[in-house]
Amino acid sequence: MRTPKIIAFDVFGTVVDWHGSIQQEAEHIMPGIDGSAFANAWRAGYKPAMAEVRSGNLGWTKIDDLHRRILDRILPEFHVSLSEEQKQHLNLAWHRLAPWPDTIAGLTQLKAKYTITTLSNGNLGLLANMAKHAALPWDLILSAEVFQHYKPDPEAYLGVADIFDVAPVEVMLVATHEDDLDAAQSCGLMTAYVHRPYEYGMQKTKAVGDLTRFDYQARDLIELATQLK
Amino acid sequence: MRTPKIIAFDVFGTVVDWHGSIQQEAEHIMPGIDGSAFANAWRAGYKPAMAEVRSGNLGWTKIDDLHRRILDRILPEFHVSLSEEQKQHLNLAWHRLAPWPDTIAGLTQLKAKYTITTLSNGNLGLLANMAKHAALPWDLILSAEVFQHYKPDPEAYLGVADIFDVAPVEVMLVATHEDDLDAAQSCGLMTAYVHRPYEYGMQKTKAVGDLTRFDYQARDLIELATQLK
Repeated sequence: MRTPKIIAFDVFGTVVDWHGSIQQEAEHIMPGIDGSAFANAWRAGYKPAMAEVRSGNLGWTKIDDLHRRILDRILPEFHVSLSEEQKQHLNLAWHRLAPWPDTIAGLTQLKAKYTITTLSNGNLGLLANMAKHAALPWDLILSAEVFQHYKPDPEAYLGVADIFDVAPVEVMLVATHEDDLDAAQSCGLMTAYVHRPYEYGMQKTKAVGDLTRFDYQARDLIELATQLK
Repeated sequence: MRTPKIIAFDVFGTVVDWHGSIQQEAEHIMPGIDGSAFANAWRAGYKPAMAEVRSGNLGWTKIDDLHRRILDRILPEFHVSLSEEQKQHLNLAWHRLAPWPDTIAGLTQLKAKYTITTLSNGNLGLLANMAKHAALPWDLILSAEVFQHYKPDPEAYLGVADIFDVAPVEVMLVATHEDDLDAAQSCGLMTAYVHRPYEYGMQKTKAVGDLTRFDYQARDLIELATQLK
């Protein structure tokens, strides 16, 4: 089985549990709210917001600012009113997302043999704060912000190979999102699917397609590390 | 005494001993050569090469590629001929620079209280490989490459504040180069000078100006960490 030189990780959902963390912070700051629905509503605004940037309708805008635009839109939908200070604090909940239980051990094992980097649409400041908060042991933090192109634009995937001066096939993307992996694969990268069945919470199941089209499929990052030994 | 939120580090000379590491690799691959003179000649080509990019004469070019251009020019001056493979290997010596003896301990102490990032003209791939090789515990690796502006262009210094969404005065640059610190200071950043008397080897002394214009002056990174406690 081929192995890569560089392993790039999608972050939201793949490495950290955005749903659980946002639910918890939302329920803390807005008692009585349905935190799970709130987390999913916030996240649902994410792709449309990035699509505006990708299409050129909106100039380059950091995820922090996109998150804030979405937050300002959904708060009235949940009939909640927060102070400006509370909104700023809640918006930064995305900097404080908790890793999945296997994340630190899996990344640490993979780091011993490979160079591990993020490839996230999250901005660099968000990813750095998250890594410090959660002790994620990245060799490098790469973001769409570096390439000024959000995934799934090819520039983001090919940019990782360029940064490390390797061929695209020497980079592997790890993600729990098939569309992300499909885009990486069409750029010539290797791909690994990681199951995160509770990405959207316990109530919402994730439909999964034929995963044999990816180079690796693993239950979690520890299993992936074992496969890549 | 004011303290910053984010500490950004110049890397070549401040964090790692480029002179000693390049001298050693040069003498290993080219027995009989004056490795110290070779290291200084290679480094001397660095600022003029970046000036070409800064002036717009040369489009954006990574330090790896600038290093290679300089290497190709100085090898004949030292009457040495290397194979293409040897040249590629030697050029990557800049990815393998050794930290100063106080570096790891100093950074680790600073990291406990502050967010620590690089702000180097070295490219991201170089800095990531160096950090992995030397176990440098960065929270984030930032490079001129992210801002597409080499220091001392203001975009590089102000870029760090923008990435972390803080005011320039909340960022402190640590460097052993007064011109770098002067440029950071004129952008509103805090500054700390670190003495590295042997940056250019034992034979070559470094002239030092009035350092009281900087916020902090320290013998090494451990002393700086003590001052910032």
